[in-house]
Amino acid sequence: MLEAFDFVIFGGAGDLALRKLIPGLYRASREGSLPKDARIIPTCRNTQMVTEYKDKVRAAAEKHLNADEFVVADWDKFAKQIFPVYVDIATKDEHWAALAKLMNDGNNKQRVFYLSTPPSVFSVCCKHLHESGLITNHARVVVEKPLGYDGKSAEEINSQIAEYFREDAIFRIDHYLGKETVQNLLALRFANGMFEQLWDAKSIDHVQITISETVGLEGRASFYDGAGAARDMVQNHILQLLCLVAMESPNKMTADRIRAEKIKVLESLRPLTGNTVKYNTVRGQYVAGEMAGQAVPGYLDELGKQSDTETYVAIRAYVDTARWANVPFYLRTGKRMKQRFAEIVIQYKEAHKVYPESAGYVTPNRLVIRLQPEESIKIIMVSKDLEKHETHLRPVSLNLNFADTYKDFYSDAYKRLMLDAAAGDASLFIHRAEVDAAWGWIDPIIEAWQRPENKPHGYVAGSWGPQASQQLLASDRRRWFSIDEVLSGAEQEW
Amino acid sequence: MLEAFDFVIFGGAGDLALRKLIPGLYRASREGSLPKDARIIPTCRNTQMVTEYKDKVRAAAEKHLNADEFVVADWDKFAKQIFPVYVDIATKDEHWAALAKLMNDGNNKQRVFYLSTPPSVFSVCCKHLHESGLITNHARVVVEKPLGYDGKSAEEINSQIAEYFREDAIFRIDHYLGKETVQNLLALRFANGMFEQLWDAKSIDHVQITISETVGLEGRASFYDGAGAARDMVQNHILQLLCLVAMESPNKMTADRIRAEKIKVLESLRPLTGNTVKYNTVRGQYVAGEMAGQAVPGYLDELGKQSDTETYVAIRAYVDTARWANVPFYLRTGKRMKQRFAEIVIQYKEAHKVYPESAGYVTPNRLVIRLQPEESIKIIMVSKDLEKHETHLRPVSLNLNFADTYKDFYSDAYKRLMLDAAAGDASLFIHRAEVDAAWGWIDPIIEAWQRPENKPHGYVAGSWGPQASQQLLASDRRRWFSIDEVLSGAEQEW
Repeated sequence: MLEAFDFVIFGGAGDLALRKLIPGLYRASREGSLPKDARIIPTCRNTQMVTEYKDKVRAAAEKHLNADEFVVADWDKFAKQIFPVYVDIATKDEHWAALAKLMNDGNNKQRVFYLSTPPSVFSVCCKHLHESGLITNHARVVVEKPLGYDGKSAEEINSQIAEYFREDAIFRIDHYLGKETVQNLLALRFANGMFEQLWDAKSIDHVQITISETVGLEGRASFYDGAGAARDMVQNHILQLLCLVAMESPNKMTADRIRAEKIKVLESLRPLTGNTVKYNTVRGQYVAGEMAGQAVPGYLDELGKQSDTETYVAIRAYVDTARWANVPFYLRTGKRMKQRFAEIVIQYKEAHKVYPESAGYVTPNRLVIRLQPEESIKIIMVSKDLEKHETHLRPVSLNLNFADTYKDFYSDAYKRLMLDAAAGDASLFIHRAEVDAAWGWIDPIIEAWQRPENKPHGYVAGSWGPQASQQLLASDRRRWFSIDEVLSGAEQEW
Repeated sequence: MLEAFDFVIFGGAGDLALRKLIPGLYRASREGSLPKDARIIPTCRNTQMVTEYKDKVRAAAEKHLNADEFVVADWDKFAKQIFPVYVDIATKDEHWAALAKLMNDGNNKQRVFYLSTPPSVFSVCCKHLHESGLITNHARVVVEKPLGYDGKSAEEINSQIAEYFREDAIFRIDHYLGKETVQNLLALRFANGMFEQLWDAKSIDHVQITISETVGLEGRASFYDGAGAARDMVQNHILQLLCLVAMESPNKMTADRIRAEKIKVLESLRPLTGNTVKYNTVRGQYVAGEMAGQAVPGYLDELGKQSDTETYVAIRAYVDTARWANVPFYLRTGKRMKQRFAEIVIQYKEAHKVYPESAGYVTPNRLVIRLQPEESIKIIMVSKDLEKHETHLRPVSLNLNFADTYKDFYSDAYKRLMLDAAAGDASLFIHRAEVDAAWGWIDPIIEAWQRPENKPHGYVAGSWGPQASQQLLASDRRRWFSIDEVLSGAEQEW
């Protein structure tokens, strides 16, 4: 069980707090992993919000939790641990003093400051925390992406925070790392001898990492147009997933050692610069199309102006370590894609050909780690078709579906990461050097995209992205796997 | 679809024909794989049996088929293809002439002679087949075990049959090879690159092959006491399973190539002779005990006389090929065991130890191929326990259960093998050289067992065999896996 802690959420009435943070802490409370004397201290921008806060979070929780999770008695018990306060982050006034009094009154507990705010106020918030005497040896700060716009701006943000917090007290969150399947990837790799032996260029043909979204701009137009898919998804989530797939085994399962191995992966990414960018990347931008039978506008229509920002990106990446010698990592993400799913696919090399043609096509083995829409791990293998007398082979899957295995299990990445932060376990958080290295790889790509020949290709909303992205793999005699082809062996629709 | 064929069953009213062969052919008929003009010709020992035959097989089929399989209309259709005849195998009289007339009348079809008789009449049966002009170029003979009592007697039987049939027309049946899971083992190994790479001494710690029976003598006292577990189970079934696990990939999936690789395995078994037998084998004989709450007598009580015949055997075997350098194959079989199951377990080596002790015991990976009571393939791997916040590992299984995957699927080894024989596909039948090589390994073991120090150990009926068998593995710091420990990780009860 964790020690008691104070968990301060700056931006306590914001969207993330209402949708994810408070419901996650409620789940922790229900399952008994939230210490009874832990205090949740959300900050609000005025006194009226403070007054209305508990009704507001309750309504949000009812909406965002699963139907069977919201239990009035459990909520009421949990809500007693919420202490909303009025704090204007930018103004060092008596409300900061009240917060300091609240927190310093009595004991010297573990404390977490969750900055669920734009990065522009990180610095002033840390400054005021410091000046209020709130940054103790037991204090940690959790910061949300976006951490900058490029390597330089990320470094500025990191430097500002570092004026007030030691690196080991700074918890940079990437909620993809809180997913149970992602953590299970570590267990899969390092606690299973058979997979460890099958985890290199000798056995693996290539790796695919996909984060496919169906949503469009969702009211984030101004932010998104300034960022694009590479900054929004690749620099953080996709590269983090790549790290977990590609990293060497740490010698111990501690935050330091795990993060050191991830940094080595990021530093081993083969640089894509100048002319190599065109050959190894594909940008796309969706045009009007159809999603689930409904007409949807194109990106430029949604945005209301001209733009070259990509809403889709595919990259052929290489990790230049001995383990991954010349194994391509195909990365892709896009908005307004045909279906929502996030998946890591480890494609093994083909078996030697010993069965006759008449036995059917022998699909090479695949390990499929799915993060969305459900969390599951599958091995796609070849089995004899029992319904046929003559030997006929067909793909089947060995499944580990967490929802099946664990009744009443809801994977909640934020819950997990908030408790980790409270426990001081930084294993699943991003080290400053990781942020640097990730931008160090992405920046030159984005720079080369400014060239006229690297403008985004159009793709129809509701499709699987631009043709050029299929050609990126086709030129290697490979293809993207689709979400539902696992057992049918069907080719992906273009 | 197969060509039409005549399928003659000598011993057509015997136990095997009624329980397995006719029901198997009925299944083939129902699923459409029995050609409509195929004829099933069971031989009876007198005319009355011929008259009553169809009623008798129908009653037996109703009893031995699953409830939803026996459909009157299907049976009536199938029964039209059954032509029982009166033939006294030992006496070359007008009934043989009638059989010849029946079969030679009209066409020159594929023909199978299934000798469901004691080996003592194989020779005379083949002689009469020959003299009746029934052995055409399209004729095959299927022979059932027991094929002899040792290498010498097996060779005599094989020589007798070889006087009349070419080796490629002799189909020696081992019904374990007809099980779908066993055939799937070949597909698993040779059509899945990931398993092929994990199939050697570098990856595998050891292999266990178990055939555990709960039955006692079952009225076979006189035969069984003259044979014992090694001859009854190890020489044939268990060594055949070992061959499929240990063989190199054939260069083609044809009967010749597959059997050539199996012969190489049998010839590579490290000989156990003289003093090495005591160290590497354990014999057992059950004493009175309890099965499912019922008291059951001991072997000697059932037999009614003194005997040193073993009803249990465990062997530590080695296949001296480069692939299997010093990997032990632990083989065991017994009667009156606690539970009935047959299983091949591939135990992989342990992963490097990187998780802390507190994360729990990390079970090494296992591939479990179960033949009885149900047919399934499982991979036991380690996963993170989702119910715990701190990293805790636990074994889980990835499952391929054929009954789940294939609705209405009944694995029927005899059906499969009879159709193979009719099609002339000998892949799943035993070559003469295999019989020789298997006896060549078993004979010296049985010879050494005649020494006083190798008398069987007593074990209580309803247990898991003699203590000495547990010690055989314990001395290698290993243990037998039990049928139900897969997920509990529980130690086997001794």
